[in-house]
Amino acid sequence: MGTYGQDFPSPGTGVSELFQLLRDGVPRTRAELSKATGLARSTIAARVDELMRMELISPVAEAASTGGRPPSLFALNPGARVVLGVDLGASHATIAVADLAGTILAEHTEPLDIRRGPERVLAWLVERAPSLLEQAGADRSRLAAIGIGVPGPVEHSTGQPVNPPIMPGWDRFDIPGWVQQHLQVPVLVDNDVNVMALGERSVAWPRVDHLMFVKVATGIGSGVISGGRLQRGAQGVAGDIGHVQVARGIDVPCHCGNKGCLEALASGPAIARGLRAQGIEAADGNDVVDLVKRGSIEAVQAVRQAGRDIGEVLTACVSLVNPSVIAIGGSMARVGEHLIAGVREVVYTRSMPLATEHLAIVQSSAAGRAGVIGASGLAIDRVLSPGALRELVGG
Amino acid sequence: MGTYGQDFPSPGTGVSELFQLLRDGVPRTRAELSKATGLARSTIAARVDELMRMELISPVAEAASTGGRPPSLFALNPGARVVLGVDLGASHATIAVADLAGTILAEHTEPLDIRRGPERVLAWLVERAPSLLEQAGADRSRLAAIGIGVPGPVEHSTGQPVNPPIMPGWDRFDIPGWVQQHLQVPVLVDNDVNVMALGERSVAWPRVDHLMFVKVATGIGSGVISGGRLQRGAQGVAGDIGHVQVARGIDVPCHCGNKGCLEALASGPAIARGLRAQGIEAADGNDVVDLVKRGSIEAVQAVRQAGRDIGEVLTACVSLVNPSVIAIGGSMARVGEHLIAGVREVVYTRSMPLATEHLAIVQSSAAGRAGVIGASGLAIDRVLSPGALRELVGG
Repeated sequence: MGTYGQDFPSPGTGVSELFQLLRDGVPRTRAELSKATGLARSTIAARVDELMRMELISPVAEAASTGGRPPSLFALNPGARVVLGVDLGASHATIAVADLAGTILAEHTEPLDIRRGPERVLAWLVERAPSLLEQAGADRSRLAAIGIGVPGPVEHSTGQPVNPPIMPGWDRFDIPGWVQQHLQVPVLVDNDVNVMALGERSVAWPRVDHLMFVKVATGIGSGVISGGRLQRGAQGVAGDIGHVQVARGIDVPCHCGNKGCLEALASGPAIARGLRAQGIEAADGNDVVDLVKRGSIEAVQAVRQAGRDIGEVLTACVSLVNPSVIAIGGSMARVGEHLIAGVREVVYTRSMPLATEHLAIVQSSAAGRAGVIGASGLAIDRVLSPGALRELVGG
Repeated sequence: MGTYGQDFPSPGTGVSELFQLLRDGVPRTRAELSKATGLARSTIAARVDELMRMELISPVAEAASTGGRPPSLFALNPGARVVLGVDLGASHATIAVADLAGTILAEHTEPLDIRRGPERVLAWLVERAPSLLEQAGADRSRLAAIGIGVPGPVEHSTGQPVNPPIMPGWDRFDIPGWVQQHLQVPVLVDNDVNVMALGERSVAWPRVDHLMFVKVATGIGSGVISGGRLQRGAQGVAGDIGHVQVARGIDVPCHCGNKGCLEALASGPAIARGLRAQGIEAADGNDVVDLVKRGSIEAVQAVRQAGRDIGEVLTACVSLVNPSVIAIGGSMARVGEHLIAGVREVVYTRSMPLATEHLAIVQSSAAGRAGVIGASGLAIDRVLSPGALRELVGG
């Protein structure tokens, strides 16, 4: 088991190079592998045997031949290992077992209050894991890594939450260390919206290198993928757009102590508050969604205005990171096109043409599963990394 | 000579791995190289000889020994090759010769109007190169690559300007192709502010992975380095913050067709316009700088307000990319602390504490040379890349 977050030098034996090529799942012959890597045919044959012995790749079919025995095709064996993907929200938790292709084999969700503190919440995860692995038909020995998304800022190098506002007791708690004491595999931790951005990308935009995922729920936050990589920033709080000031709300107080924050105007609770001021009953964001679905004009108008407020902040984001996709998720995205129409209205009016020419602003495709899919993806990336393979082969 | 912007597979022979290790300039023994790469001592010895024959590395001194002949130390030979760094502005051009350590060996600046069009401007570059190489004492055969910064959006994959607003005649012009016809080396092209961000980082913040460089001059733009990499965005216009709306200027028309853009309020010409409205003579940004230096209260106040406007937009940037350094450059930065004080005032008031806890907002250290240093850096990165080395060794 490697040190958390450590970068490894590449093995240099050709095994790693070969495996990095095969991890895309596309079947290839030994001759194709030799051509792509520049390694000798004899070396390729030996390395393919080595990876097969480890069950990381398997022969998948036979290629067409020009005569004689057809050459074998090899590809990643997705069932070689499994990972756990864990999505911890403010008041619920989801745990899933996935194979190395990211296919979810088993999944379980239940209400769980993050404020119960790290040891009780993580104990739930450790207790839940064996039965879920069994349900997925995966032996405990096949578990290779765990990815966890949490609702707060995370220091990437240590996997520790840093001053998380809605996670009392979790500040600087060593999540990877605690979990590894019970389940002896690498543990990767990241902010929940970052993880959702990874999940959304893998589900709907695998070839897109510049994507923003915006979560609109009780709070508002975003995950930013630029240049093909999740961007975490210097303190791990990149994408935290909920407290950017919006012109309309200059006098609206926010729980952060400032005024006019996006979150104080366009989050679920903020929209509900606005409706109550008009005499309409709406306790929270869920009530707003219900009102919109029942056709309340006031609720539709309020949601559209929230979309415009979000669009105002996203205009600056579009100028700064120039994404090609903005996916809107979170519980408020369930209101459908009304929210996104407001976002589009402002972003397309205010941004420079070159930045919006090929920009898609869409509803999240992964929706509620973005978190658990992204957390599994974090873990899979770790398992398939050159450093992890080096450990497996003892290099 | 490689195809522009192409990615190469690594050579796989160990030469490239070794050289990537040595490119930091730190001297190492054969034993240290063997340990760091995992390659056998005999392989290391052969590869070191190979790189020495190519003059890419050289013995630099002898390490302390525990007895017997002291082991030799090897490091990158910065004089092995030279590059040209070219900074094309709206009305001036700078060309420099640099070695592989980024040291500028010769430099020349002259007024040159970018509106003369690509062929005349680039012909100037081609004509200037031989005498500058001679001045630097570098044989023509040592020239290995050229980096060019231009004042407009550039498509990274082709090095072509795309709808550049102040570069008539340059839209989709194949700069690398044209220059390579005359100087047969790889040519890398990027937006001028992106190049300045690279230059600022290499001069003042070599270990910083999250840096924004903001140019405040006739226009306002920024270059964003996140996760250690320059972020160009989907269309190459990432960092283009000049047309984000600022609350104060809701009715101020901008040349882009919108109203209230940052550039319409806080650029050099915009500040000069504001001063003229108060009856103070100021034709352009240079006059504003002179007024501030002569102690004009009105000019100081105007510059400080411009800083606040820039700070308003940067607050959103800080939330989105969470940099640890914001460096302010461009001709207006010559007014000194007044501009930066305004930026700091707003950013530190409005941003979340975690994002500003370790954030430095400073004047550019590279100042007017950021462009030419960054352009040289683009070229050096190309020369020292694994793909380029593969070409050199014919791998």
